[in-house]
Amino acid sequence: MQRQERLIRLTQRLVEQPAAPLHVTQLADRWGVAKSTLSEDIALIRETFAGAGTGNVETMVGVQGGVRYRPVVAHDDRAAFLGELAARLSDPDRVLAGQFVYLSDVLGDPDVLDFVGRLVSAHFQHAGVNVVVTVETKGITLAASVARYLHVPIAIVRRDQRVTEGASVTTHYVSGSAKRIQTMSLSKRLVPNDARALIVDDFMRAGATARAVAQLLAEFDAEVVGTAVFMATAMPVAKMVDSYVALLQVNEVSEAGIEVRPFPLTQ
Amino acid sequence: MQRQERLIRLTQRLVEQPAAPLHVTQLADRWGVAKSTLSEDIALIRETFAGAGTGNVETMVGVQGGVRYRPVVAHDDRAAFLGELAARLSDPDRVLAGQFVYLSDVLGDPDVLDFVGRLVSAHFQHAGVNVVVTVETKGITLAASVARYLHVPIAIVRRDQRVTEGASVTTHYVSGSAKRIQTMSLSKRLVPNDARALIVDDFMRAGATARAVAQLLAEFDAEVVGTAVFMATAMPVAKMVDSYVALLQVNEVSEAGIEVRPFPLTQ
Repeated sequence: MQRQERLIRLTQRLVEQPAAPLHVTQLADRWGVAKSTLSEDIALIRETFAGAGTGNVETMVGVQGGVRYRPVVAHDDRAAFLGELAARLSDPDRVLAGQFVYLSDVLGDPDVLDFVGRLVSAHFQHAGVNVVVTVETKGITLAASVARYLHVPIAIVRRDQRVTEGASVTTHYVSGSAKRIQTMSLSKRLVPNDARALIVDDFMRAGATARAVAQLLAEFDAEVVGTAVFMATAMPVAKMVDSYVALLQVNEVSEAGIEVRPFPLTQ
Repeated sequence: MQRQERLIRLTQRLVEQPAAPLHVTQLADRWGVAKSTLSEDIALIRETFAGAGTGNVETMVGVQGGVRYRPVVAHDDRAAFLGELAARLSDPDRVLAGQFVYLSDVLGDPDVLDFVGRLVSAHFQHAGVNVVVTVETKGITLAASVARYLHVPIAIVRRDQRVTEGASVTTHYVSGSAKRIQTMSLSKRLVPNDARALIVDDFMRAGATARAVAQLLAEFDAEVVGTAVFMATAMPVAKMVDSYVALLQVNEVSEAGIEVRPFPLTQ
């Protein structure tokens, strides 16, 4: 196999399975090339990604000869994407009854999902996340994209207890907006031992849902290493969770209009 | 930029955004290289993917100088993956009350999701799909992966009508197993004009849910170009939908055990 071919196939494998270990020794055997040759190829891919600012190729500690790819979103690309997204969402047609914001189209847009996955996974790449947790329904597509880029499983918290989930832990909480008692249920088999969970959701107002998920995860002795939401309201400023990251902030929602902008901390 | 660098960056871009058009003329301008040079690079990437059996680089008709990547799953890889998956699922611990099968862990496994996305998208790559439709909750992760590889939006059918979905079309149907009247609701803004929909779901028994989704989509004048499910039951043989593809077939579920195998047509 010639070097150009190897570079193409290595790049394909690294990018197609982000964060998944690539075992260089195994691959060298399979391709019938020296390990040192593959290592030189990988070094060139690493340099190229670094020079372009589009990704990292990490050498994995503790795995013999393992490397993995993690995408990087350049600052300018992030600003441009979030700016365009904020403009797209600042559309009075999106204001629904009760000052809810219509997001379902954006949460199904493949480019938005891919961007959110790359951005949020890059933010938490060193947090040791081993499970992404979300609550049905609207955050699932976002959570799946983040989980893909972190190469970890996704666990979906259900709003009611289902037979198809097997043995589950169920908790209750008072929702922030409706002031009603809500139920949350999570299948016991979905949470790994020594879980380090990243909570992903589409929207945060007061943070009651995120706090309830954290409390549910505490029943599994899971550690919550972060909370990431697609859009957060500017008010109330103090949320019920200690810390969170958001991509977008919605400052005002009324029948007259809506103002969405990139979340201040991500600019 | 040297040829090796260009090959690495082109491969990264193609693979990271499957099915999304890459405009060669624009990129040639941005990189300051001749279009013919990039075209030669892309030809080499195309040959390499074809030789390895891992993907196609298509020239897009009607878009000036556009190409796009589509993954290919080799026959042997498909057989090996589905065989292992069937063995993993043929575990008596997965049998739940009422002869349901526990699938939630697998439906959150990043490698399974990626594989399903590549396999199903490859099967429907020429069907002109412009929206992937699923029903909440368990099929969403699968549908999101398929939609990613087809580079089309995903539309989620809700089990009840929600204010956050805006104006919606709601229908009713009788579920196959529980013989109860069920509700389905789909946001009007989620279905494109001249929709060509691929229905994706996790499980099919009689096919009542898939048929109900097709009937709901008929209210949008959408054409259903296919139905793909992760697992189908062997019985009843005749489903309520005209045609479908499945990855796995479950032949027997009882308290004594469960037998899952690759779906006959996909072997």
